[in-house]
Amino acid sequence: MNKEQFIYLQETGNVSIPVILFNNYSKLGLNEEEFMMILQVKKFKQNGNQFPTPTELSDHMSFSTSTCTSILRSLIQRGFLTIEECEENTILFENYSLKPLWDKLYSYLMQENNKVEQEKSKQEDL
Amino acid sequence: MNKEQFIYLQETGNVSIPVILFNNYSKLGLNEEEFMMILQVKKFKQNGNQFPTPTELSDHMSFSTSTCTSILRSLIQRGFLTIEECEENTILFENYSLKPLWDKLYSYLMQENNKVEQEKSKQEDL
Amino acid sequence: MNKEQFIYLQETGNVSIPVILFNNYSKLGLNEEEFMMILQVKKFKQNGNQFPTPTELSDHMSFSTSTCTSILRSLIQRGFLTIEECEENTILFENYSLKPLWDKLYSYLMQENNKVEQEKSKQEDL
Amino acid sequence: MNKEQFIYLQETGNVSIPVILFNNYSKLGLNEEEFMMILQVKKFKQNGNQFPTPTELSDHMSFSTSTCTSILRSLIQRGFLTIEECEENTILFENYSLKPLWDKLYSYLMQENNKVEQEKSKQEDL
Repeated sequence: MNKEQFIYLQETGNVSIPVILFNNYSKLGLNEEEFMMILQVKKFKQNGNQFPTPTELSDHMSFSTSTCTSILRSLIQRGFLTIEECEENTILFENYSLKPLWDKLYSYLMQENNKVEQEKSKQEDL
Repeated sequence: MNKEQFIYLQETGNVSIPVILFNNYSKLGLNEEEFMMILQVKKFKQNGNQFPTPTELSDHMSFSTSTCTSILRSLIQRGFLTIEECEENTILFENYSLKPLWDKLYSYLMQENNKVEQEKSKQEDL
Repeated sequence: MNKEQFIYLQETGNVSIPVILFNNYSKLGLNEEEFMMILQVKKFKQNGNQFPTPTELSDHMSFSTSTCTSILRSLIQRGFLTIEECEENTILFENYSLKPLWDKLYSYLMQENNKVEQEKSKQEDL
Repeated sequence: MNKEQFIYLQETGNVSIPVILFNNYSKLGLNEEEFMMILQVKKFKQNGNQFPTPTELSDHMSFSTSTCTSILRSLIQRGFLTIEECEENTILFENYSLKPLWDKLYSYLMQENNKVEQEKSKQEDL
């Protein structure tokens, strides 16, 4: 690996994913193919492409363009992904947003914590 | 989210995955389910569990234990994952190793680079 | 860079640091040298060394061993770092813990959020 | 921590730094304050600000604006950081680039590897 390749490797960098999301995506209702689609969207956004097309996603995955389209549609319909409109220099852009995913993860974590707390207080009542 | 949950979130940390692996896993011959299995193994290893069982993996995925077993077996047979034996205080341990994956990624990147170089020298010859 | 070096690079991996900590360490009272000491401790812990010595830290920093000792002592005294005792197979180990740092970060974020909320409700009262 | 704060935390994300850079920055000739300046520039770039001002950097560090200016100047003069000009929609922009840092790290790793190889062949000659 020559110097140019090493620099490219460092400049493209890494995708950082919370362990807590890795541990719980399936409990949130995502399967591996859907979760990987979300991670690919995250990667494209991080590298400056806020609205990758199904064809761009397909180039980095084992799915056809039409499968990418249908997974994206399903993720949006089930509230894991949204499309946000934003304006820059009077031009309207569309961006994917992962906020609904973080929202679902937060609710799940709070709910799990409540269960633990209730369990504790039950045992103290005995 | 209370203080204890926040500290837990920070202590569990993140899994960091090179963008270059995200861009090329499907060209290496992995589908999304297999790649996710590899990332889960990486996560367990990072958190100190060098040899997660199919049941432990299944708890964090949408797969049954037996599906985990068969995906792991296939990854080992096709040379994406190996089991290393290591000794600590005279006790033998088994660890998963991702070295074969990095090996395959390296070979792929070198091969792609060679193609680009050959293309360049062809054009210079004209 | 040959294959062995590339594999080593991938196996050593990355240290992942929350942007929110990067933005606020100086508001928590840490200077750059102290924050870097904390990041080095985090890196050693991640790679399996839970209690790096001042000499080990010094090998990866621009500080002498005795400067490392005095920075570590100061971080412990001011409540950014603690030493936890833990038992494994009847042997007692000492580990550095970053929990006090996350505790301070949490308190700071909550306090900042309260200020914003109070500002909002003041403006609504007008 | 409420839902909005949790989402903000996830959206700001993490800075990922190769362990190999953490282990060797001081051997490349950087002290902790200089290395932290580079990490701050990396963080700003990742969040879309390719050319943070000394004032913006100072807001997230323990340094004054003028200290930031002088550290940046020294990093540029010693070849750890460069300013690249790039054009977008006929407007010229200035960006910080970390490519010289990766270049230095690559050269250092190759040089260390050569030493190891030479040592090996010497021992084989005996």
